[in-house]
Amino acid sequence: MAVYTEVPDEDLAAFLKAYDIGEAVSFKGIAEGVENTNYLLVTTKARFILTLYEKRVNRDDLPFFLGLLEHLAARGVTCPQPVAARDGALLSELCGRPAALVTFLDGVSVRRPTPRQCAELGRALADLHEAAKGFELKRPNALSVEGWRRLAESARGRSDAVAPGLDALIAAELAALGPTFEGLALPSGVIHADLFPNNVFFLGDRLSGLIDFYFACDDAFAYDVAICLNAWCFETTGEFNVTKGRALLDAYHAARPLSEAETAALPALARGAALRFMLTRLVDWLDTPPGALVKKLDPLEYLKKLRFHQQAAGLGDYGWRP
Amino acid sequence: MAVYTEVPDEDLAAFLKAYDIGEAVSFKGIAEGVENTNYLLVTTKARFILTLYEKRVNRDDLPFFLGLLEHLAARGVTCPQPVAARDGALLSELCGRPAALVTFLDGVSVRRPTPRQCAELGRALADLHEAAKGFELKRPNALSVEGWRRLAESARGRSDAVAPGLDALIAAELAALGPTFEGLALPSGVIHADLFPNNVFFLGDRLSGLIDFYFACDDAFAYDVAICLNAWCFETTGEFNVTKGRALLDAYHAARPLSEAETAALPALARGAALRFMLTRLVDWLDTPPGALVKKLDPLEYLKKLRFHQQAAGLGDYGWRP
Repeated sequence: MAVYTEVPDEDLAAFLKAYDIGEAVSFKGIAEGVENTNYLLVTTKARFILTLYEKRVNRDDLPFFLGLLEHLAARGVTCPQPVAARDGALLSELCGRPAALVTFLDGVSVRRPTPRQCAELGRALADLHEAAKGFELKRPNALSVEGWRRLAESARGRSDAVAPGLDALIAAELAALGPTFEGLALPSGVIHADLFPNNVFFLGDRLSGLIDFYFACDDAFAYDVAICLNAWCFETTGEFNVTKGRALLDAYHAARPLSEAETAALPALARGAALRFMLTRLVDWLDTPPGALVKKLDPLEYLKKLRFHQQAAGLGDYGWRP
Repeated sequence: MAVYTEVPDEDLAAFLKAYDIGEAVSFKGIAEGVENTNYLLVTTKARFILTLYEKRVNRDDLPFFLGLLEHLAARGVTCPQPVAARDGALLSELCGRPAALVTFLDGVSVRRPTPRQCAELGRALADLHEAAKGFELKRPNALSVEGWRRLAESARGRSDAVAPGLDALIAAELAALGPTFEGLALPSGVIHADLFPNNVFFLGDRLSGLIDFYFACDDAFAYDVAICLNAWCFETTGEFNVTKGRALLDAYHAARPLSEAETAALPALARGAALRFMLTRLVDWLDTPPGALVKKLDPLEYLKKLRFHQQAAGLGDYGWRP
């Protein structure tokens, strides 16, 4: 949510010489993405986002992210499309940081998605899963069970200060969900893994773009669906909205039918997804110094969601039946 | 340099209903201005900057700032032009804060202005001073001699930690410059008072816009010129560039001739301007907690400039003769 690196005009001008995109008409740092510095660049030809990758992003992952965007955009997914320099490179360097240019997407992200928008999202997620097939690079999910264990270890002894009993709850969830997750063998491929409403643009009720693929990795498609159920279908007051759940799942299922095994696993996957986001938020909460540039997200929001999933008897509680 | 207030899409939609500017197509928080939250808003009709005034801005000053922009824009100054709501109001409210929409200006700010750009700036400054004539609201300069004394008081006993001997130097400067400034009777009117390169947009060598009028006030026109000599004509290495000084002053003088009294006062005004920016930077430096959202500017840059002005024998040292 911050501009970590200021790019002087002369460095920008030198950078742009390597591209065939015209002259800069406007250049503004924007508050998008938590990890990187992003600029909105308007040239005499078009609008772009210029991203400088700050140190929290592993440079070795960049070919995966940029290659994936190129692969998806070529298959009709409305995601940022990397712009190659004159020499064909997607990745460049600016102000001592890896840097990439991507196309700009119109649209506004919504805070409280409507059922119609949840359906659009479900459809777009299925299309994304289908379009990613054939992408050749691999990236394991660093925030799957092993990652949860590491996060839990880092929070241990400190999390009760955030909510009484949280240490024990995390340990119990890991004991219950770890083996379940590790025993799953579901259809897998590239997933977005962070498709929250702030990463999706709409123009009215029409979905106009998906952004921020920096958690994309290889994992079960249905886990991506479960992440979206958490991120899209709960009300701000904490209740699960079955109308939104049904809209999302119906639309996904229509475009990429969920198998019986995927359907059966969904409640556990949703519970695991809630645990994953609770853990990352918890550790950020505990480790971020006050006044830091990063906006802290509330781990308790995901504790509430986790409790809903713990109590869910089956898919019916999500408003859905395949 | 930060987005202090997040505006949810539904609040934005409700806000826009009061205006006749179309539907939102894109809405991004931008890192512009230190004191307020700014969004770049693209609608189906045009591009705008939406500003939410945070608590450091005095609400009573907003009619002055917005009225001034309207007055200037109507007289051909390329500054942000306030957009009235359907009911005619320039000032509205959003997320509990005063808010205003202004037109978007193309252009990129430069870090190291060329002599040609300094000439453009000199001309634009003179045009601004002429165009502001007839504007009826008044706003005293809160950062003139009385303001300097308050800042010096606040830094006293702490500034030697920033540079040895700084406390004594500030006291001596105040003793020397205070009476000089208070004895001046120069042509006055609305001045920008903060026209640094980051507040000026260029498209190539052509000046395309002036922004950030939140220090604008009534004071001597020549003091505004002196502020710009400090902000535009020193090299990043610390030397005054007489070619840039001459370019700026020639261009200003051609558009709004400086009187003999103004010319004679310029060295003292430049010295006072250097003291003013050194003092505000010094107090920000001393008072801002580490890790805060605000970017701290180096007070020592202005200490160096102040020393140049102390040693200047006359206008010749600025490369100029009227």
